[in-house]
Amino acid sequence: MKLNYSKFISEIIVRPSDIDVNNHVHYSKYLDYLLAARYEQMHRDYKMSMEEFIDRGMSWFASNVNIDFKRALKLGDTALVETQIESYNGAQVKVNFWIKKKANDKIAAEGYAFYTLVSIKTGRPLRIPDDILEKYSV
Amino acid sequence: MKLNYSKFISEIIVRPSDIDVNNHVHYSKYLDYLLAARYEQMHRDYKMSMEEFIDRGMSWFASNVNIDFKRALKLGDTALVETQIESYNGAQVKVNFWIKKKANDKIAAEGYAFYTLVSIKTGRPLRIPDDILEKYSV
Amino acid sequence: MKLNYSKFISEIIVRPSDIDVNNHVHYSKYLDYLLAARYEQMHRDYKMSMEEFIDRGMSWFASNVNIDFKRALKLGDTALVETQIESYNGAQVKVNFWIKKKANDKIAAEGYAFYTLVSIKTGRPLRIPDDILEKYSV
Amino acid sequence: MKLNYSKFISEIIVRPSDIDVNNHVHYSKYLDYLLAARYEQMHRDYKMSMEEFIDRGMSWFASNVNIDFKRALKLGDTALVETQIESYNGAQVKVNFWIKKKANDKIAAEGYAFYTLVSIKTGRPLRIPDDILEKYSV
Repeated sequence: MKLNYSKFISEIIVRPSDIDVNNHVHYSKYLDYLLAARYEQMHRDYKMSMEEFIDRGMSWFASNVNIDFKRALKLGDTALVETQIESYNGAQVKVNFWIKKKANDKIAAEGYAFYTLVSIKTGRPLRIPDDILEKYSV
Repeated sequence: MKLNYSKFISEIIVRPSDIDVNNHVHYSKYLDYLLAARYEQMHRDYKMSMEEFIDRGMSWFASNVNIDFKRALKLGDTALVETQIESYNGAQVKVNFWIKKKANDKIAAEGYAFYTLVSIKTGRPLRIPDDILEKYSV
Repeated sequence: MKLNYSKFISEIIVRPSDIDVNNHVHYSKYLDYLLAARYEQMHRDYKMSMEEFIDRGMSWFASNVNIDFKRALKLGDTALVETQIESYNGAQVKVNFWIKKKANDKIAAEGYAFYTLVSIKTGRPLRIPDDILEKYSV
Repeated sequence: MKLNYSKFISEIIVRPSDIDVNNHVHYSKYLDYLLAARYEQMHRDYKMSMEEFIDRGMSWFASNVNIDFKRALKLGDTALVETQIESYNGAQVKVNFWIKKKANDKIAAEGYAFYTLVSIKTGRPLRIPDDILEKYSV
């Protein structure tokens, strides 16, 4: 049982098409930023990309997301998306995340997501295999 | 103190551009569906559209969203988005929501959102005025 | 050789998430509206849905789009997307489109798109089969 | 009269949310990439950001886009968006663009866009002022 998993960081450049009528990054885009960060981190930091999961007949789905919106991101901003595994349980992993404005390191949004590993063939949850737990225990 | 607020329903037709590589509605699109439903319901059911809030110098922002993803929506599906106010507290309202597949009434996603009323000028939270509470108490 | 193909119409309700910082439907969303309209019309009007093409190992890709942006669409608007085949040539079909504001029938955007039928297996263009030309000659 | 304007390049990292059911970057996203590139280049290369235009009561709108889709971009790809002014005429500028896959420099999409300078107050086209023509003549 690991006490503390590593925190990984990805940079996302805000696009004009992310901006809504209030001149802020649209609230659903934060989930896109989180997903983009996790993809990059799976490949770069955990050394097992989503493609490799799919090659093994498995895929991750978000089963729950809880997100607090704190401060707006705007056009011209770069976001930092930090994620950190909190715990594993069967087919699920709980990941905490913080989306910050790079220029001042202030939190724009934060929360957690539960991801469930599923079999692509059956669509049923799959207990996370030991070799993957190992890779993810950095 | 109202015991039970009305549940309102909006229909959203899934667009091809909502569909992701897994052949499902992309997970962040559910927040777009929720927002589209609330806009329609503010205008049609609460009889006070977002534009009227803005004319009075106020706006609603989502401060927290918690969403459970249950079953996939696909291309060709129509979604039903039901929302129901649970409670008010100062500048905040808690709204429960259920996003269903119209064809079989099964839940695709459900959760709740906290919306905060803010002053457009100051950006600070605004206690919900009594006349608005009244309109929203249907 | 048909002189005049039918014009088909689809309705698209503008979503808040379609709106950009200028308070207008974001310019790339018009392509999403066009795609949503073509999907509906393939199924409803041409009686051969995209799914049926895929089942036969074929798919349509947009190879060129030319679009004139004339007037803005806004939140609260419903768009009408009219499309009409202009001509066929080998693997390609040229489709003219008009995106209008339903309330006043004024054109928001118009243009044409070339779609190419491709084999899913090889990715190569496929001469449009006669039975499909027939279905599309309404 | 300048014979040849500079070509400027921006990098766009493909996000998982850009990917459609065919495992390719969705066709409307290319317009988002073009817009993101122009914003960056206005600020970085032309030394007059969109915000500065708005401060002077002016804004750019795309009035026409013509785009050829050549090869798919996929998840994991980085796009290079090159743009180059071709000519000016009154309130309009014609910009050629090439969207390439960074890894092999092959063209994914290419085309041109006409942008019209408009007065924010009146919404009418504005002859491009000389000092701006100068800045844009790099």
